[in-house]
Amino acid sequence: MRIDGRDFRTIWLDEGGRDVWVIDQRRLPHRFETLRLSSAEAAAEAIADMTVRGAPLIGAAAAWGMALACREDASDEGLERAGALLQAARPTAVNLRWAVERMRRRLEPLAPGPRSEAAYAEAAAIADEDVAVCEAIGEHGRALIEAARKPGKDRIDILTHCNAGWLCAVDWGTALAPIYKASRAGLPVHVWVDETRPRNQGASLTAWELAKEGVPHTVIADNTGGHLMQHGMVDLCITGTDRTTRTGDVCNKIGTYLKALAARDNGIPFYVALPSSTIDWRIRDGVAEIPIEQRGADEVTHISGVDSQGQVRTVRLTPEESPAANYGFDVTPARLVTALITERGVCPASEAGLASLFGGEEQAA
Amino acid sequence: MRIDGRDFRTIWLDEGGRDVWVIDQRRLPHRFETLRLSSAEAAAEAIADMTVRGAPLIGAAAAWGMALACREDASDEGLERAGALLQAARPTAVNLRWAVERMRRRLEPLAPGPRSEAAYAEAAAIADEDVAVCEAIGEHGRALIEAARKPGKDRIDILTHCNAGWLCAVDWGTALAPIYKASRAGLPVHVWVDETRPRNQGASLTAWELAKEGVPHTVIADNTGGHLMQHGMVDLCITGTDRTTRTGDVCNKIGTYLKALAARDNGIPFYVALPSSTIDWRIRDGVAEIPIEQRGADEVTHISGVDSQGQVRTVRLTPEESPAANYGFDVTPARLVTALITERGVCPASEAGLASLFGGEEQAA
Repeated sequence: MRIDGRDFRTIWLDEGGRDVWVIDQRRLPHRFETLRLSSAEAAAEAIADMTVRGAPLIGAAAAWGMALACREDASDEGLERAGALLQAARPTAVNLRWAVERMRRRLEPLAPGPRSEAAYAEAAAIADEDVAVCEAIGEHGRALIEAARKPGKDRIDILTHCNAGWLCAVDWGTALAPIYKASRAGLPVHVWVDETRPRNQGASLTAWELAKEGVPHTVIADNTGGHLMQHGMVDLCITGTDRTTRTGDVCNKIGTYLKALAARDNGIPFYVALPSSTIDWRIRDGVAEIPIEQRGADEVTHISGVDSQGQVRTVRLTPEESPAANYGFDVTPARLVTALITERGVCPASEAGLASLFGGEEQAA
Repeated sequence: MRIDGRDFRTIWLDEGGRDVWVIDQRRLPHRFETLRLSSAEAAAEAIADMTVRGAPLIGAAAAWGMALACREDASDEGLERAGALLQAARPTAVNLRWAVERMRRRLEPLAPGPRSEAAYAEAAAIADEDVAVCEAIGEHGRALIEAARKPGKDRIDILTHCNAGWLCAVDWGTALAPIYKASRAGLPVHVWVDETRPRNQGASLTAWELAKEGVPHTVIADNTGGHLMQHGMVDLCITGTDRTTRTGDVCNKIGTYLKALAARDNGIPFYVALPSSTIDWRIRDGVAEIPIEQRGADEVTHISGVDSQGQVRTVRLTPEESPAANYGFDVTPARLVTALITERGVCPASEAGLASLFGGEEQAA
């Protein structure tokens, strides 16, 4: 996507085709900086310290980390060492393990000589495949945005929660891909951006992405969406999902469920965009079966921003005596989801809906 | 209520019975400071700069402001001047106008001589009446908390939104009064405190009040309540209301509606506590008829807290290019409210319910 008129991905190979560059997402939205990764160690560090974040991007970074490793040491031991190092960078990231394993399956049958070239090709394929999946989601979702356009209203108001944009993928994103496609097709979209406390990925990352691509948007407190929906100021909602059950329940950033309830109460379509890699075919009941990560209380009690001198500072919001709790995700039951937007098309949020797009092969995986 | 073991109101007369003291709420939760008011000018300034806030407290402060004025100049002109000054401090505060008018009705028939003494008595009566109303709400609500206790669960989990505590009244508060009464009666209450973005009255004022009174509580992001309710971690909700329609719709801090939806979806009682002075008998449809205040975008884009040196700082959270919107309130339709808790008892959130407690006299007022 565009930053100040120039096209970017979140991760790319430099002109020499050797080193890898990424956007340093820890600095956003207050500073735009890029960072060169020249070794598997550097890639692992970038994953661990959240210079790069988001499942698809972490996968691509790990894949290129394996390629960087091959450049130094393409032996079996070298591959194994790099794979272990990269996997340890964010131990619970499913996509990270998947990418490392795919790279090893591709490289191990080869002699050390051709491994480096094959590794760069495979990493590029992983990145390109992600872009293709997101772009397909974007095209399918764009049609839904077009369909939600109200006659006589001069803009299409879309509410989104958290950041499921191109910053968490390689390009396009998931929930934001349809919005970018609609905007580039000339549709008059306007996005209500939930700030998404406590980590504020909406106020920082989503707002920044939309501003850079030139998509009209307004940041709101997470409390606001219900009021907007009651007053006809939201035409549709689109969010992402971190994990989707075979029955269409979606586990996404905490607070998604509240917006889905408000959408239902006001007759507004609530769409969830997802690459099929987020579907967990083993799970039927999201509320009962998906464990919800509890994160540090300091994300609730403290917040960071820039002061009037442009310096990033962290301040405490709560009384020192008051404890805080920080649940990272919630589950929106399929009954509240109007439809799922996948790379293969749009389907009802139900077991039959998902089965109509994804057959036995995926479900057995 | 208690602060570090000592009983406080938000506003009180000093030992000499002349000057008025208030808690400086601008410093909370990071510093507890009190401020002496010695003139109507000082009282007006404290109202204007939000040293004191909350409808009942503003009313009491204005009443005592009139008493302070009488001490200096008890003439008709003096009364008029002080009344105009105090009303201009927060022009849209209904309670402020009400208190000033009540003081003038009480004082104007008297000769200047006895006005000062009568003014102190009337101001004290206004404060005491507010305490009595809040305490009655507390007693009626305590019974509902007791009734919500789940057998075999070692605590009663209550979710609240914003600050409807004693800091916005003279004592007890509205939504928090039942919680204080329950806690003092030995019930094992625990309060989930919505931080209440964008002004964070929950994370600052409600958390501080509860901590000082020793009531167990946990601060959460506003996004969290739905997840807690899905998992049996909330037994009941209690919020306040700024304006209540004759049909039982409640206009309260933005985000209240989302919690009411989640409570309904999970079969959890959702109570609203209110002094009958918040009922607007002229309005039937809250969503359609109540205008919602839009406040400055900087409350969304910027936030204040203390840094590690204890210094209060303001930081920006959003990209400079991104606009923000700030709607202050939303309307929760009566159909989502389990019952209203008033000073005269508990009633259904409906026209018939309110009429059963408040007869023709109030409705004609």
